[in-house]
Amino acid sequence: MDSFELDARLARDCLVLGEMDMSLVLLMNNSLLPWFILVPKTTETEMIDLPRSEQVRVLEEINLLSAFVKNHFAVSKLNIATIGNIVKQLHIHIVGRTPNDCCWPNVVWGTTQRENYSPERVEEIRLALKRCLADKFTCKK
Amino acid sequence: MDSFELDARLARDCLVLGEMDMSLVLLMNNSLLPWFILVPKTTETEMIDLPRSEQVRVLEEINLLSAFVKNHFAVSKLNIATIGNIVKQLHIHIVGRTPNDCCWPNVVWGTTQRENYSPERVEEIRLALKRCLADKFTCKK
Repeated sequence: MDSFELDARLARDCLVLGEMDMSLVLLMNNSLLPWFILVPKTTETEMIDLPRSEQVRVLEEINLLSAFVKNHFAVSKLNIATIGNIVKQLHIHIVGRTPNDCCWPNVVWGTTQRENYSPERVEEIRLALKRCLADKFTCKK
Repeated sequence: MDSFELDARLARDCLVLGEMDMSLVLLMNNSLLPWFILVPKTTETEMIDLPRSEQVRVLEEINLLSAFVKNHFAVSKLNIATIGNIVKQLHIHIVGRTPNDCCWPNVVWGTTQRENYSPERVEEIRLALKRCLADKFTCKK
């Protein structure tokens, strides 16, 4: 993983909350939706190209982050996707959806509706995630 | 799994190619894109609510179908997603993408560009999938 570096567009559009064993944990800087992104620390661009054991560890992190999003934001549906048509670096979107959100029932990708988070709100989310994931998550600023 | 039944909208929009151990394998009836859907035979609506052992078996089927899509259609990117905002039944989209396809670089969900497959083309794809997956796939018509 020596050559891993966060993609410049992800770095620009998102806030780095911290990291787990396999992945960086990002928050899309759009307070209209609970939109998280896991970035596995690898240079592969497709999940299928990771060794099976690493896939299962990433799956575990998807599960942990999904449960946090579902419970903390009380959403009614999770949208989970690897797309990567524009940003090649492997990254997994985990988005909490509710029938009254700005994009429902459409997907969030491509939406132009956007509102930045306040620094205080980001800190609240980072701390809530830390409380939920405990030693499986390391905060980063 | 006694109460599992394919969702009516998936049945209308897709062709059932066959099944694997955990999932039905559907082909979206849109010949503009190699767009497959796995439907795990469960009544849960989120991947995180499946037991871990079943998640790993579904992951294995995602891997097998992803490899088929990538190789058989020579695509440059896989888009893999569970969304379910409209159709609640758990289903996983596996879509092969190329920079000259009808939606690139946007996502395929919500596209109105559509062209039905010919029955001959569906049969070709079903047989190619059978050749690739061998005893892991059972054809269905």
